[in-house]
Amino acid sequence: METGSRIDAALDAAIRRAEGPDAPPKLAAALRHAVFPGGGRVRPKLLLAVAGACGDPAPTLSDSAAAALELLHCASLVHDDMPCFDDAPTRRGRPSVHAAFGEPLALLAGDALIVAAFETVARAAPADAQAAAALTLILARAVGMPHGITAGQAWESEARIDVAAYHRAKTGALFIAATTAGAVAAGRDPAPWRTVGAKLGEAYQVADDLADALADEKALGKPTGQDAAHARPNAVTALGVGGAVARLEALIAEAAGAIPPCPGAGALRDLVFLQAKRLAPKDLVQHVA
Amino acid sequence: METGSRIDAALDAAIRRAEGPDAPPKLAAALRHAVFPGGGRVRPKLLLAVAGACGDPAPTLSDSAAAALELLHCASLVHDDMPCFDDAPTRRGRPSVHAAFGEPLALLAGDALIVAAFETVARAAPADAQAAAALTLILARAVGMPHGITAGQAWESEARIDVAAYHRAKTGALFIAATTAGAVAAGRDPAPWRTVGAKLGEAYQVADDLADALADEKALGKPTGQDAAHARPNAVTALGVGGAVARLEALIAEAAGAIPPCPGAGALRDLVFLQAKRLAPKDLVQHVA
Repeated sequence: METGSRIDAALDAAIRRAEGPDAPPKLAAALRHAVFPGGGRVRPKLLLAVAGACGDPAPTLSDSAAAALELLHCASLVHDDMPCFDDAPTRRGRPSVHAAFGEPLALLAGDALIVAAFETVARAAPADAQAAAALTLILARAVGMPHGITAGQAWESEARIDVAAYHRAKTGALFIAATTAGAVAAGRDPAPWRTVGAKLGEAYQVADDLADALADEKALGKPTGQDAAHARPNAVTALGVGGAVARLEALIAEAAGAIPPCPGAGALRDLVFLQAKRLAPKDLVQHVA
Repeated sequence: METGSRIDAALDAAIRRAEGPDAPPKLAAALRHAVFPGGGRVRPKLLLAVAGACGDPAPTLSDSAAAALELLHCASLVHDDMPCFDDAPTRRGRPSVHAAFGEPLALLAGDALIVAAFETVARAAPADAQAAAALTLILARAVGMPHGITAGQAWESEARIDVAAYHRAKTGALFIAATTAGAVAAGRDPAPWRTVGAKLGEAYQVADDLADALADEKALGKPTGQDAAHARPNAVTALGVGGAVARLEALIAEAAGAIPPCPGAGALRDLVFLQAKRLAPKDLVQHVA
């Protein structure tokens, strides 16, 4: 099965469990709205690409980890869009969850998606319980305190922001989780995959900064100019457009160069460069979500 | 070690991990504020009491499950207190998390506590990875969709509320998690422990309804009259004070009667009746949190 289909099938299974009998209907609808139709599914695709490059001997584990990672990403988008953060009325070209369902259900939807993510990984324990626990710890590190995306978001509430820690936590953490979880799901040592994830996360952040600074709001499907509006650090402000594009290309090359020896290393390197082309500003609009 | 100390030690370990180096300081402070000093720690004490009645052969597992259960409870209190739900300025006699730290950090604190809960259980996997996965599923069921506390809270957003489902999800789910997780942490079949948890959860809900209707706000440390203010179902409204007290006593007797055979069944029954005395309205104020 193509990776996009595998991811959507695993996500659909998780959401169908959450919608189960006797569920409060509006929250059930809010969960599906938050997850389908998806954006680029960039992080779970990266996870499955790494697992695939390592042979992917246990697809139950890699599918579960990929779905969990995307559920956590969707949860963060739901909460980040809320009025006390970005107050974003749209996401992926549709109303954001709080715009469609109200603040209480958006808050609960984010919570329930976080829970569904960890449940999804635990359900893969019959395949390999130790691996499921290791994947849980990778995911928790990526989203929790002190270094995950909740920490990244929390830096915005500090008077003195640690910009490096901010970006590592807010964007890098989920990419590091994608590469290391892909390796663990395939029974490999995750350590050498950290740099690959970190570099790709930085590259994605630069691409997102370019999109925020340059792209058309309607085509992007979410509000632009948010970094300027919220006085957040942005690579375009720091380096200019040309400098940011050069940085993006350098990061992609570093990521590709950091891929450790594995059966599918060559194909994975090709995929990284292909993805980089898609992130380049000229057709940025269609590929960032 | 006395169970209260075991619980606080396990919670402190979890919060210290979250506070780790380079954490955003305000969110770190918000997490500690949400968890310490605690309320009655009713649910984790119940979990350890059940584990103890079953011999508690693996305290690493039972401590982790108890801490995780309380972290999830604390997360739900932080989010429930927020302006889009109860808008409660106080909790346990102190400012609620959003009152002390603002809405963004309260939202993030709840998220980070949920993550810390699942991380805590996964860290016990070296003791027994299959048990850790089973505990994760019990906890996810108690807090997630379709039947956990997020579902319970979501029923308040429905035009037609399923009152039985509402109470089962909002209060009963965590008590069922407490008894069944205690059994699983001790290597026992959780199934016979469901009824014990369900009855105790119902009893606690009735006691909480009595507190909400009767108790003094200052002494209780949180706003009272919330059920009337939010038009929520309440046992005192339905049965009157005398009827609610009788119902509380009947539920406690049913819970004690449902305790399955285990080495410490007698002592656990005594503990349940002792706890019930504390929940009785005359000194309700000191024991509900």
